[in-house]
Amino acid sequence: MDAEQLRENAHKMVDFIADYYKNIETFPVLSQVEPGYLHKLLPDSAPTHPEPLQDVLDDVQAKILPGVTHWQSPDFFAYYPSNSSIAGFLGEMLSAGINMVGFSWITSPAATELEMIVLDWLARILKLPDEFLSTGQGGGVIQGTASEAVLVVLLAARDNVLRRVGKDALGKLVVYSSDQTHSALQKACQIVGVHPENCRVLKSDTHCDYALSPQSVDEAISSDIDAGLIPIFLCATVGTTSSTAVDPLLSLGKITKSYGIWFHVDAAYAGSACICPEYRHYIDGVEEADSFNMNAHKWLLTNFDCSALWVKDRSALIQALSTNPEFLKNKASQANMVVDYKDWQIPLGRRFRSLKLWMVLRLYGLDNLQSYIRNHIALAKHFEELIAQDPRFEVVSPRKFSLVCFRLLPPHKDDDSANKINHDLLDAVNSTGKIFISHTVLSGKYILRFAVGAPLTEERHIVSAWKVLQDEASALLSSL
Amino acid sequence: MDAEQLRENAHKMVDFIADYYKNIETFPVLSQVEPGYLHKLLPDSAPTHPEPLQDVLDDVQAKILPGVTHWQSPDFFAYYPSNSSIAGFLGEMLSAGINMVGFSWITSPAATELEMIVLDWLARILKLPDEFLSTGQGGGVIQGTASEAVLVVLLAARDNVLRRVGKDALGKLVVYSSDQTHSALQKACQIVGVHPENCRVLKSDTHCDYALSPQSVDEAISSDIDAGLIPIFLCATVGTTSSTAVDPLLSLGKITKSYGIWFHVDAAYAGSACICPEYRHYIDGVEEADSFNMNAHKWLLTNFDCSALWVKDRSALIQALSTNPEFLKNKASQANMVVDYKDWQIPLGRRFRSLKLWMVLRLYGLDNLQSYIRNHIALAKHFEELIAQDPRFEVVSPRKFSLVCFRLLPPHKDDDSANKINHDLLDAVNSTGKIFISHTVLSGKYILRFAVGAPLTEERHIVSAWKVLQDEASALLSSL
Repeated sequence: MDAEQLRENAHKMVDFIADYYKNIETFPVLSQVEPGYLHKLLPDSAPTHPEPLQDVLDDVQAKILPGVTHWQSPDFFAYYPSNSSIAGFLGEMLSAGINMVGFSWITSPAATELEMIVLDWLARILKLPDEFLSTGQGGGVIQGTASEAVLVVLLAARDNVLRRVGKDALGKLVVYSSDQTHSALQKACQIVGVHPENCRVLKSDTHCDYALSPQSVDEAISSDIDAGLIPIFLCATVGTTSSTAVDPLLSLGKITKSYGIWFHVDAAYAGSACICPEYRHYIDGVEEADSFNMNAHKWLLTNFDCSALWVKDRSALIQALSTNPEFLKNKASQANMVVDYKDWQIPLGRRFRSLKLWMVLRLYGLDNLQSYIRNHIALAKHFEELIAQDPRFEVVSPRKFSLVCFRLLPPHKDDDSANKINHDLLDAVNSTGKIFISHTVLSGKYILRFAVGAPLTEERHIVSAWKVLQDEASALLSSL
Repeated sequence: MDAEQLRENAHKMVDFIADYYKNIETFPVLSQVEPGYLHKLLPDSAPTHPEPLQDVLDDVQAKILPGVTHWQSPDFFAYYPSNSSIAGFLGEMLSAGINMVGFSWITSPAATELEMIVLDWLARILKLPDEFLSTGQGGGVIQGTASEAVLVVLLAARDNVLRRVGKDALGKLVVYSSDQTHSALQKACQIVGVHPENCRVLKSDTHCDYALSPQSVDEAISSDIDAGLIPIFLCATVGTTSSTAVDPLLSLGKITKSYGIWFHVDAAYAGSACICPEYRHYIDGVEEADSFNMNAHKWLLTNFDCSALWVKDRSALIQALSTNPEFLKNKASQANMVVDYKDWQIPLGRRFRSLKLWMVLRLYGLDNLQSYIRNHIALAKHFEELIAQDPRFEVVSPRKFSLVCFRLLPPHKDDDSANKINHDLLDAVNSTGKIFISHTVLSGKYILRFAVGAPLTEERHIVSAWKVLQDEASALLSSL
């Protein structure tokens, strides 16, 4: 690690990456390689002697990039976005440069303290209640992903209850969500040992726009209590993965409070939109929540990974997740003068992730970040209008943020043929390499998802994408 | 994300980071700030308007770096190392530049396939049995940390057994380790719901150099079975955190095999040494293991995080960790033609971490990596010899790798005063800012740990560190 060699080589890498962005529109968005393609291109073992950087960069260009699905392409509309930005990238560089492991305050006080400060900043931007600030009994923490966020709060909720009722009651614990809740909750339940038959996946439907019905939650909880079970946790979502449904936080929160169960709000994607006053109302009721999560790495220009989690009662997390081995003991921790984030998360080690979020907030400023969100939502609205002008298509659920759910209507409007033709249309457009979109199923309908959110996407990309969809639809319809 | 702006700003950041490395020896190794220092230096909220990069860099220099504990300093000897290297840093840059989220094969085939290939490379370098290669029923996966590695294999083991005996038997499951096993296992047990009273922490002691005794394991398992309990998991360690103890894998593996329980080997730190033929014998017996883990981010020049985990039976992991929501379904996954690493780990999202490991192996080559390890071990040996020449000190446990465990002997050799003076010596040397070392406790003795492993450490740093220790010891002894 010679400073001058680092300088020379890293400058080369900067140019390589800048050129990648310059040419990003020339790649197929969705990689078109076949399974096992790379095995044929690389040797079976590591080299004995060093190889030049240029050889590696040539291999990245010739062998790796063809196997990359380009999430940063302006023509990427699949899943939800995973933003990269100059500020986020610089933050990643700096974090990798310092390369410290901030498990305890003492192992880099700045890492812990900047994380607390920056999550307070973001909490204030989102107008979260004061109980989520680090100045009280709660606070924010950066997790890797929303999956880890829901897992750690579920553990906190589980252990809060088991401490009271005894650990043999694990089989009686019940967790509530809707059929639109992210699969991360199911996985978290598997991990912490909540029995599958005690995971209440409440049905949502088109009548309530796929939001969770407070009445159904109330009824489920009440009936579980009657049956001798112990409700512990409700996960509500603001902006579901399939269709950006928004669960009614205020009503749900009042129910969870009346039963004394943990209320978690997953706003992984749509949380970013709530930095704009006109979208903030989607998280009205968050005052009632015990924990709130949004992914700055999705739609807030912060490179992956950066999932912001706030809790009102940090001690619940710490009781579930702390260990205190001798080799990590130190004065500041023993005196309870500091936060040790190792006790707020699954892993011990942790990166200096607050740097990139701090740099995003400072180098762009709130005004620009709001414009960024508004622009994507306007682009999605434009796409929705284009669909509405073509009678062969329909918008399936009302657009709230930057995701449009739509489908092609086949000549014979039965569900089976509609599902088949949309499945085929998805394949056809993704195979062109020109755009990448993904799908979901709602009430048995196969639906196409068009999620605007890549930083480079402009109006021309929306217009071209729509043209690709129309052309492939025409080809499919004419082949029927 | 304009390519030319990215280029310009990232070049600035490269120079900032290269200058950091040039000046790294001028900082106090252990940050000397007080808790809450940063709060006083930063505003309470994010800016509305953008700020210039130079202002942010100035703040990093003036406000952040004083709060950083410099893990990359050549004078960092605490815990275990967390290596940064040019190759590792370039890999981080490239991964942050591409910024894709590789949860399924289709979301970037190159990310999944390069990970499989590079972990096969590393498995061959370590001479792991073929069952750990991706070409069979097993394979490697990069986890964030060894904590996550042990958690996922414990889940696999738990669910293997619960599928057979029923999930209500959770309270009967027993996990085995020694009192030297990393606290990550205890945390994993808490998370997956193994009852604390069923975590057998077997006593190790100085007679067997703090290695786990196969006989004690055998007896514990046998007695648990007699008591109607169900043994499921043994975690052995090669290179314990306190003192680099090495558990006897071969004997332990034979025992776990005879009882049919999962055998995990944690070689988080010492695994890197096993790339050298002369140290490979420390993992003899790994053939018997069900899973093996080493952290390339500790001592193999790969920036944090990169924890390599291999399993023989990937289906056990997948059964414990898979979810299959509609919105992630795709042809390649449905046809079982590919690996989807989301089912091998806790989170859904994942970074392109194999790039940095690939670049480390290629840009350095095996020969240089072996020399790198040998150099650190030679430096540790030199430090050990320096201690041996000063009768005021003693080496406490035999050095195997690059960690030296030692202590100052007080004039009155009772344990209490020995513990106190070593505690004070630790404080004194770390307060100088010249070096950073950490401590542990073995058989009631407070012991100083001197872990060589920072890439920049040279002989002169060892000599100076020893001088700091001697000087502070003299001052302490004369003040008694």
